[in-house]
Amino acid sequence: MLEESYPIRTDLALESQERLQKNKKEVRGVRFFEKKEENGVVVSTVLIETENASAAMGRPKGTYVTIEAPEMIEEDEGYHRDISMELARILREMLPVKTVEKDLKKGLEVSVLIVGLGNRDVTPDALGPRVVDNLFITRHIINEFGKYAFADEDVSRVSGIVPGVMAQTGMECVEILRGVVKETKPDFVITVDALAARSVKRLGRTIQLTDTGITPGSGIGNHRNALNKKSVGVPVISLGVPTVVDAATIVSDAMTTFIEAMSLSDLQKLDEHERQELARELLSPQLNGLFVTPKNIDDSIKQLSFLISEGLNIALLGNKEEGRSI
Amino acid sequence: MLEESYPIRTDLALESQERLQKNKKEVRGVRFFEKKEENGVVVSTVLIETENASAAMGRPKGTYVTIEAPEMIEEDEGYHRDISMELARILREMLPVKTVEKDLKKGLEVSVLIVGLGNRDVTPDALGPRVVDNLFITRHIINEFGKYAFADEDVSRVSGIVPGVMAQTGMECVEILRGVVKETKPDFVITVDALAARSVKRLGRTIQLTDTGITPGSGIGNHRNALNKKSVGVPVISLGVPTVVDAATIVSDAMTTFIEAMSLSDLQKLDEHERQELARELLSPQLNGLFVTPKNIDDSIKQLSFLISEGLNIALLGNKEEGRSI
Amino acid sequence: MLEESYPIRTDLALESQERLQKNKKEVRGVRFFEKKEENGVVVSTVLIETENASAAMGRPKGTYVTIEAPEMIEEDEGYHRDISMELARILREMLPVKTVEKDLKKGLEVSVLIVGLGNRDVTPDALGPRVVDNLFITRHIINEFGKYAFADEDVSRVSGIVPGVMAQTGMECVEILRGVVKETKPDFVITVDALAARSVKRLGRTIQLTDTGITPGSGIGNHRNALNKKSVGVPVISLGVPTVVDAATIVSDAMTTFIEAMSLSDLQKLDEHERQELARELLSPQLNGLFVTPKNIDDSIKQLSFLISEGLNIALLGNKEEGRSI
Amino acid sequence: MLEESYPIRTDLALESQERLQKNKKEVRGVRFFEKKEENGVVVSTVLIETENASAAMGRPKGTYVTIEAPEMIEEDEGYHRDISMELARILREMLPVKTVEKDLKKGLEVSVLIVGLGNRDVTPDALGPRVVDNLFITRHIINEFGKYAFADEDVSRVSGIVPGVMAQTGMECVEILRGVVKETKPDFVITVDALAARSVKRLGRTIQLTDTGITPGSGIGNHRNALNKKSVGVPVISLGVPTVVDAATIVSDAMTTFIEAMSLSDLQKLDEHERQELARELLSPQLNGLFVTPKNIDDSIKQLSFLISEGLNIALLGNKEEGRSI
Repeated sequence: MLEESYPIRTDLALESQERLQKNKKEVRGVRFFEKKEENGVVVSTVLIETENASAAMGRPKGTYVTIEAPEMIEEDEGYHRDISMELARILREMLPVKTVEKDLKKGLEVSVLIVGLGNRDVTPDALGPRVVDNLFITRHIINEFGKYAFADEDVSRVSGIVPGVMAQTGMECVEILRGVVKETKPDFVITVDALAARSVKRLGRTIQLTDTGITPGSGIGNHRNALNKKSVGVPVISLGVPTVVDAATIVSDAMTTFIEAMSLSDLQKLDEHERQELARELLSPQLNGLFVTPKNIDDSIKQLSFLISEGLNIALLGNKEEGRSI
Repeated sequence: MLEESYPIRTDLALESQERLQKNKKEVRGVRFFEKKEENGVVVSTVLIETENASAAMGRPKGTYVTIEAPEMIEEDEGYHRDISMELARILREMLPVKTVEKDLKKGLEVSVLIVGLGNRDVTPDALGPRVVDNLFITRHIINEFGKYAFADEDVSRVSGIVPGVMAQTGMECVEILRGVVKETKPDFVITVDALAARSVKRLGRTIQLTDTGITPGSGIGNHRNALNKKSVGVPVISLGVPTVVDAATIVSDAMTTFIEAMSLSDLQKLDEHERQELARELLSPQLNGLFVTPKNIDDSIKQLSFLISEGLNIALLGNKEEGRSI
Repeated sequence: MLEESYPIRTDLALESQERLQKNKKEVRGVRFFEKKEENGVVVSTVLIETENASAAMGRPKGTYVTIEAPEMIEEDEGYHRDISMELARILREMLPVKTVEKDLKKGLEVSVLIVGLGNRDVTPDALGPRVVDNLFITRHIINEFGKYAFADEDVSRVSGIVPGVMAQTGMECVEILRGVVKETKPDFVITVDALAARSVKRLGRTIQLTDTGITPGSGIGNHRNALNKKSVGVPVISLGVPTVVDAATIVSDAMTTFIEAMSLSDLQKLDEHERQELARELLSPQLNGLFVTPKNIDDSIKQLSFLISEGLNIALLGNKEEGRSI
Repeated sequence: MLEESYPIRTDLALESQERLQKNKKEVRGVRFFEKKEENGVVVSTVLIETENASAAMGRPKGTYVTIEAPEMIEEDEGYHRDISMELARILREMLPVKTVEKDLKKGLEVSVLIVGLGNRDVTPDALGPRVVDNLFITRHIINEFGKYAFADEDVSRVSGIVPGVMAQTGMECVEILRGVVKETKPDFVITVDALAARSVKRLGRTIQLTDTGITPGSGIGNHRNALNKKSVGVPVISLGVPTVVDAATIVSDAMTTFIEAMSLSDLQKLDEHERQELARELLSPQLNGLFVTPKNIDDSIKQLSFLISEGLNIALLGNKEEGRSI
């Protein structure tokens, strides 16, 4: 299920960037910014600007923004609210529309289809479906009653779908989405998905947003066909949170640390890919299909899905005082 | 949510037929057959053959087959198997393809999209989604490996989708299905839905199959736009099980019985519609949004969804000895 | 499953009181107060003070307080908070301890076992288990770390249990609770249960608190043995919310209204019990095991369980600014 | 949450035995048998007969039987039935009653409380609760109707309880069980729990039965107080299935293999405990609270719970032709 061809398994552009930095490779066409906020939240941006850079990073040209917040899965409503607001701000900047209202108190007037990718019945893969469960859906109301239903304020046409995974539907996600987009004509699509990270410290603590859509092999459920403007028909923004680490990855990490600590000079010449292969060989095939997750993953998915749907609600409909979620 | 214009709320053609019989109205263009089987199962067929008959019955021209089995929600695997087989047989006869293999041990070679209508989070409305959960989905396997994956036997391309309800998606079901059908091109669609019955004795004990698709106002979730060949693009077979009775209906039933028992001659002149209106008036608005369900509805939905998905699996893929369900 | 011997099926003392009033019977030993609050919430108190009154009311001597709030199942966090606070205030007054801190900002220092009665797998019966899921449990923390764990503030020892129903456990609830109470020695027990109401307008909109424990035949799951100080070993406070109405009840109600509206003088002589029997006869046995519930019962149970657990958390631990729930 | 004092984290006596064998230590007082069956199932028995052996093995004196079946989590009803029967046979031999009927077609006449340990809301820890959900509970029926209810055949009094975990209840499991056992007086208790294994290849493929009860630190939820005859009051048989591996364990395993493969002679002198410590040091604290599970853990738990409850049903009530489970 994991893509064999992809050297180091990560869905985070930030982690690919870190790898380059660590190996002291500088790649032309990749730019990187980082901003630390008062509450400990770190927002970093990776820009992949050329085809060469795209090849080196193993992912499409575009903008990748990462929000890292150590306490994202703790129970703290105020803190969650801060992250939801940050998420809303970043999302508005990324939207493929000409000018966007910056004041979060006001809503937008776009038409968007939000897609909850992943498998509702596999806990670490259920993030996308759960986010869609908590969205404030408006398209059918506006279609029937117009903006009057919302006191004439600006309010986006929000629709949502949980397409399911191929084993459940027999269809590629892209087939379903292309059909639905043609019929319902949103301005753009936002996908939400659970990701695989490289580092256990990012599990449940990082949100990645990108304007490039979903690339093959991404997501823990390995959605094989790209979801992007070309395949779906309208621009695709992807939002994801790492919820698992491939079991082979943590073994490889441990060995890297070990080799360095032991000063095993010959082995230090192995590059990361070779070490990962070594890890697979040593333990294979036992590690196939195994993932590392936090024990409290059921709770984390619940918290994260509230937080993200709140961010999406604020970005699209504005920050109304009254809480909308439970 | 209930259709005001529809005189007596039932999704079962059999119940409309019973009403006509009771009122001693004979309608040209309606034919009716009934077959009692050894194990107590009754299979009845209502044929609506003319536009006049369609108007009188309040539903489209077509074939409506009903399986009534008193113990459908009891836990008895053998009995369930019998009903699944019966369901498979009836379904094969109704398929919109030229010639169909009658031997249930053999599979078919059709391409079908099965749609689980209803709301997964409202127990009595969750039948459709749960049936799709238990289907044997093959389309993606055949697309990738061909019939080789199934030892070259005849095997249908089965795909499935749970579109969700409008309050969750902001989209009409018909928009989603039309899009998905255009992209994936099944030969026909089968919808599965929870229905509203007229009589409490039918709750969870009746399966209706029809080749006319879903009509407006049907289903407990009231899917407003028709799903049929015209709107979806390919023929639509609808399969449904009544899981609720409108609360106003049982009050109306009680009053009818009461009026007759008391020989209240003036009141006996009221027709059914007038009695239902009277019931609504007497108790309204308290009865709005209230439904009557069996206390064990959660269990019943579980049992029924296994039974129906088994019937669909057998109809489309043949009756392999090994159980597939659970 | 319904108690045959009990004339009119209701778990609400308020409804028994209303019946007496309607029949213009005044019963010595029953006192009744009502308080309407600004936000539309009505709090009524029924005191049953003598054995005669107990017999007439069909329930034990004691205090029965009812909170009626029409919007209890709407999504409005501020309103919910108001009701949680009201519930906490009433609960504190009812606690079987000598003097109780009235300031809700401060916690208590009692030891309490909270019991979630009912069946987790039957939606309208799942209220009790869901409330326990959302409680702030402290007993094990205080046992291990003392009050230090809570900055030396007053904090109750809260424990919780979901005993399950007899069909799942093979044991009476009272057997389980008596055993657990002997081992863990709480000062008192609070039970939370889903109730059956007489009137559909009270479904999901009423909370009843009583210091008499649970009486036989109460609750939709019909817990047969009383849970009270005598049977359990410590005082039992019961908290319940009606989530279903017996199907026979709404038929009986309709007929009563009908008989009165039609001025059917002979029939007006029937008392309520006779009408209920008539309703059962007319429709029986079809109505057995059928309940009337709102269509959105799954959502209502979720909302109500948050609201009630919040009330219990505030009553026992004090109203800390930070939200604890979700 | 993991016990620091316990050198190598495993709940399987078989794995402790393998470790001794690998290190070529022979321990007096430990006996070991293995039986391979035709269908690929392996049944092994570890007998710990002396206090010395108990200390060396890190677990109490007693009998530990392990059923290993590679396809336990595959969907194959016939195969599952075989394992359920094997489980029933082994369980009957282990029961703390004088003479036990060996013919599985006949029931027993014992009184047993089955305890589903673990947290229903954490998927890999939910095995115990799910097994109790699927049991055939008889105690309340026999208490009310006697054996007549079962055609006078021998039938055990089966009761079941899901006590919850300490974070949910504020009580130790042993407090709850001791209380319930005193009140309901079963002949013995059977606990069912999810375990932590040493080797990923055993995840979901192994059932351990032991007559020693649960030992401190066992189970993935780390139930701190022993459940055994001394603490609970009647004999305790424990049944468990490994569903997780500690993340540090797979890293340690990989390093062991690595060190051996590289012939790093100095490091080969490290014993297992030292390697595990090294692994923790290298990656700590990132690995804390992380577990390795199969991606399809939700499905596996479902399958396993059916299989085990079927085994318990057959052992206690006899193998009736009619299936009882879904």
